[in-house]
Amino acid sequence: MIVLGIDPGLSMAGWGVVSKGQKDRISLLEYGCIKTYPSTCLAERLKFLYTEIQSVIIKYKPEVVAIEEIFFLKGSKVIATVGQARGALISAVAMNNIPVFEYNPRSVKIALTGYGSADKHQMQHMVKSILGLKEIPKPDDSADALAMAICHLNTNRY
Amino acid sequence: MIVLGIDPGLSMAGWGVVSKGQKDRISLLEYGCIKTYPSTCLAERLKFLYTEIQSVIIKYKPEVVAIEEIFFLKGSKVIATVGQARGALISAVAMNNIPVFEYNPRSVKIALTGYGSADKHQMQHMVKSILGLKEIPKPDDSADALAMAICHLNTNRY
Repeated sequence: MIVLGIDPGLSMAGWGVVSKGQKDRISLLEYGCIKTYPSTCLAERLKFLYTEIQSVIIKYKPEVVAIEEIFFLKGSKVIATVGQARGALISAVAMNNIPVFEYNPRSVKIALTGYGSADKHQMQHMVKSILGLKEIPKPDDSADALAMAICHLNTNRY
Repeated sequence: MIVLGIDPGLSMAGWGVVSKGQKDRISLLEYGCIKTYPSTCLAERLKFLYTEIQSVIIKYKPEVVAIEEIFFLKGSKVIATVGQARGALISAVAMNNIPVFEYNPRSVKIALTGYGSADKHQMQHMVKSILGLKEIPKPDDSADALAMAICHLNTNRY
């Protein structure tokens, strides 16, 4: 099973593709991040998120997408920009008829470390370890996206 | 010039298409609203918004889209759902290479009534009057979308 994880954001959206194959081993296919700039108008930024994630989908043909839920404790402006980015990214996924699963940060932490209050460093270390990487994926948004994809494979929702 | 106005929302997104022709007369082409239901998953709701507004775009080929800005005084959950709906709708517009103009409610009120604190009834009455309609367009979301399109034509931004 191939899973695409997404950490949504307007300025930076992380993504990571992993697969679970024989012996339940999870391996990395690719990761990256989509950057857009405040000097570009909103419509062009959303279009860029849409087309870039569509390119990843076309390349890797994921069977499932795992995306982070909106974190409501943040401020209104952050919620608005993340919401709009999510709208563009999820539309691209749904237009390709791929099911979307949403996970909150706590579920992802539990799925990876067994501990709902794990910090960023612990999470990144687990991503590196589970995928057998030499280094922690950078930027953080990509590591978070990979954590999302691993979370989906480590829970039994699929 | 043909303008598509959009009043974004996840459960209900209003839209309205108007044109400004000879003698600067603004006339109605069509209006409607896109409904999605909470029983449907988020990805399918966003996909439906995307495909439905795309159908309107293909049918009327607007040169410009006017959409309401996010209203930050609302609660976090409303901002999140409106944000996601905007993300899907604006993506569909931008993927069709149509420029998007954003207007806040006060600008729209001033453009239609000359009064920034006009109430809903005054606004709807002006939409009916400007477009030479026999009745106020329903639901309110459609009337708001038409007001957005008229606002764009009544300001000199284009």
